[in-house]
Amino acid sequence: MRLSRYFLPVLKETPAEAQIASHRLMLRAGMIKQASAGIYSWLPLGFKVLRKLENIVHEEQVRAGHTPMLMPTLQSADLWRESGRYDDYGEEMLRITDRQGRDLLYGPTNEELITDIFRSHVGSYKDLPLTLYHIQWKFRDEIRPRFGVMRGREFFMKDGYNFDLTKEDALHAYNRHMVSYLRTYERMGLQAIPMRADSGPIGGDDTHEFLVLAETGESEVFYDSAITDLKLGDRSVDYDDWDQCASIVKEWTTPYARTDETHDDAKFNEVPEARRMKSRGIEVGQIFYFGTKYSEAMGATVQGKDGKPVPVHMGSHGIGVSRLVGAIIEASHDDKGIIWPEGVTPFHVGIVNVKQGDSEADAACDAIYKSIEALGLEPLYDDTSDRAGAKFATQDLIGLPWRITVGPRGLKNGVVELTCRRTGASEELPPEQAVEKIAEIYTPHHHTERPEPMAKRSFHTWM
Amino acid sequence: MRLSRYFLPVLKETPAEAQIASHRLMLRAGMIKQASAGIYSWLPLGFKVLRKLENIVHEEQVRAGHTPMLMPTLQSADLWRESGRYDDYGEEMLRITDRQGRDLLYGPTNEELITDIFRSHVGSYKDLPLTLYHIQWKFRDEIRPRFGVMRGREFFMKDGYNFDLTKEDALHAYNRHMVSYLRTYERMGLQAIPMRADSGPIGGDDTHEFLVLAETGESEVFYDSAITDLKLGDRSVDYDDWDQCASIVKEWTTPYARTDETHDDAKFNEVPEARRMKSRGIEVGQIFYFGTKYSEAMGATVQGKDGKPVPVHMGSHGIGVSRLVGAIIEASHDDKGIIWPEGVTPFHVGIVNVKQGDSEADAACDAIYKSIEALGLEPLYDDTSDRAGAKFATQDLIGLPWRITVGPRGLKNGVVELTCRRTGASEELPPEQAVEKIAEIYTPHHHTERPEPMAKRSFHTWM
Repeated sequence: MRLSRYFLPVLKETPAEAQIASHRLMLRAGMIKQASAGIYSWLPLGFKVLRKLENIVHEEQVRAGHTPMLMPTLQSADLWRESGRYDDYGEEMLRITDRQGRDLLYGPTNEELITDIFRSHVGSYKDLPLTLYHIQWKFRDEIRPRFGVMRGREFFMKDGYNFDLTKEDALHAYNRHMVSYLRTYERMGLQAIPMRADSGPIGGDDTHEFLVLAETGESEVFYDSAITDLKLGDRSVDYDDWDQCASIVKEWTTPYARTDETHDDAKFNEVPEARRMKSRGIEVGQIFYFGTKYSEAMGATVQGKDGKPVPVHMGSHGIGVSRLVGAIIEASHDDKGIIWPEGVTPFHVGIVNVKQGDSEADAACDAIYKSIEALGLEPLYDDTSDRAGAKFATQDLIGLPWRITVGPRGLKNGVVELTCRRTGASEELPPEQAVEKIAEIYTPHHHTERPEPMAKRSFHTWM
Repeated sequence: MRLSRYFLPVLKETPAEAQIASHRLMLRAGMIKQASAGIYSWLPLGFKVLRKLENIVHEEQVRAGHTPMLMPTLQSADLWRESGRYDDYGEEMLRITDRQGRDLLYGPTNEELITDIFRSHVGSYKDLPLTLYHIQWKFRDEIRPRFGVMRGREFFMKDGYNFDLTKEDALHAYNRHMVSYLRTYERMGLQAIPMRADSGPIGGDDTHEFLVLAETGESEVFYDSAITDLKLGDRSVDYDDWDQCASIVKEWTTPYARTDETHDDAKFNEVPEARRMKSRGIEVGQIFYFGTKYSEAMGATVQGKDGKPVPVHMGSHGIGVSRLVGAIIEASHDDKGIIWPEGVTPFHVGIVNVKQGDSEADAACDAIYKSIEALGLEPLYDDTSDRAGAKFATQDLIGLPWRITVGPRGLKNGVVELTCRRTGASEELPPEQAVEKIAEIYTPHHHTERPEPMAKRSFHTWM
């Protein structure tokens, strides 16, 4: 993309209303614009990141054997009356009356609707196991929306629901979800720690939250530092293998890791002192096993092997996709701006022409641009007439992980500059070598720690 | 995908409430389920098609140089008061009050919101031309929702907005949209005819609707049959070339084609009688040029070349993405079910094992399945224990364009059966040759008439 043809309205001033880094940087980098309290428009750069996260979530859910679908944003109040949650849910539920006087609501979650779909269409234990999920806009009428997309009212979320014949089957579904979530966050360049949680209004026995460590997190967290050494890396996971999934879950749930809600001082003190960590965390996902709570309330049964109806065992599992954009920034930024992990960056590399209009510099930039596109990667070429300093500031602000700087002086010596956003380290090298280096960086599994890049993935791998 | 692991709840009976073919077939093929009046859940098969259409729209918009973003579903009423449409819009606008007593609405369209984004961020003629678009859920509180997704209340729509300095620039944007829409519909296997339209509540001077011919269409249409011979095929279009875009628009707008709303009997009678056609059509898109109507009402100006503020020339352009799923089915089905065009089919080929459990048949199906996946295509393998007749009925109902039938009798002679859903024609051939044939069918530009398949496209081509 050439910047002269893009819509990237960066702000020079820091907006007064933004209290935390991600909110401030998303506004300044032209990623979002508030439409009304807690409701945002995603400007092109923000939408690009949101869509990349959505795609990673889809790919990892499909890899785990889960089936994508889509439920609507508005739901009938009747279904929620049936489960008993219409009155329970409180004022955070946005209640709507249509022109015919029917009660609707903007779905904050979808247990009722998915259970209704299940009971209408699934009749036999032979149709199980089944896990359906969708990624859809949801609404919670927060009394005090703030922190940008981190605590907005209209938010984009993946929620998935498993239906199983027995508790054991449902616990495997729980484990499968935990593993697929770990992989999802890793690909986004995030370390999200599963922590035992309270079940809250959804109800349930087993539940873990996933928290990203960040000073601005809403929760206080206590953990054994051993957990931060764990990585899935490029382990191959067979999601049909109960034992493998259970052993990965055990690995991640053995070290102490809890939020203030479930914290147990006595247990925490059993952790060797040097590994006892206290920090803050941002919740980016949660998984639940809640047994037959909804299936019994709403009559979601299947014919069991003995011909008798049995209520199914269910769980629900969520990832806050729009919130993750903010969480990634909270976990990865500096004074100058955002630092995108390679797996989610909106563009793979920035090209800065320090002397736009200089025919050699222009030609060199064009050539680099085309070579990077030919790799299946996306460059963002600042071809505007801004002075070099302003171009660098914009690049640092929007946080592309790599930048190639092209100027007449370097070109005389046959070199351009390749700069790493995270370390600030630069090296001079011939243009072709800079492009080769970019190709190498975005090659899958170049390092096991590197999140898998998305450039060459087909859109359809997840559908 | 193996059917035993998919969620495809086909119905044997025809639902009583469904009056038209697409509604009936989408319910029977397990594509949708009504959640409440005019509001649908998209079950896995339906969601897959919806997402393919969304992807085609994105790719063609980006190809035309338009920039994707995303606006929220809920909007502040204040913006609509500013444009004067809050009261004008009538009861089809779903009005909502949040817990703080603020007036919101579920956006039926986005002229106000996009104009607000524009005026907040764009200041100079140098930032023009600019075309922003999004694909988002919208709501119209139809008094009598019916015909399934064809006239639902919550619907998925692409709407795009161009901002230009002069009327001439804006008319090029209009032409660019018309051409990109023609290409979009062609890739979906549809013939959508642009017809001069009335501007309705959005207002505007120039406007065309795109109509797909179908008996169940809501509009009566009158056209010169010459227009149905026009095809873009694989012409290469340079969207920056004003003359080329204008000449394509001229080609498509010269033959007479109007709906009953703008029909002119005298002009129609100038068409040679043999080419004078009367039919019905389904509206699947509309483009508008409306000049400075919104920019003046809402103060969307830029500094012109002389330093003085000038209101920008705008247009808005929509494609009904969820409605298109229905329109494609209306235009392409038979008594047995849906017939998907290759460009939008949810799976590329069905595999029917007529004797599940027979080790040779099972092995042959597995091998074909793997070969098709290796091509980057998606098979749907009916590996259930249903009898052959039921499997064929399901395949015909869900309408995959190609089917490979595998049975012990054929395998003895070293052959399987390849069947075309549209013609019903079958041929026996060795499994490898059947797979080769499938590969050839889905190779881009195999025939110029064939819509470009999507299998090998990268997700990121459009972002």
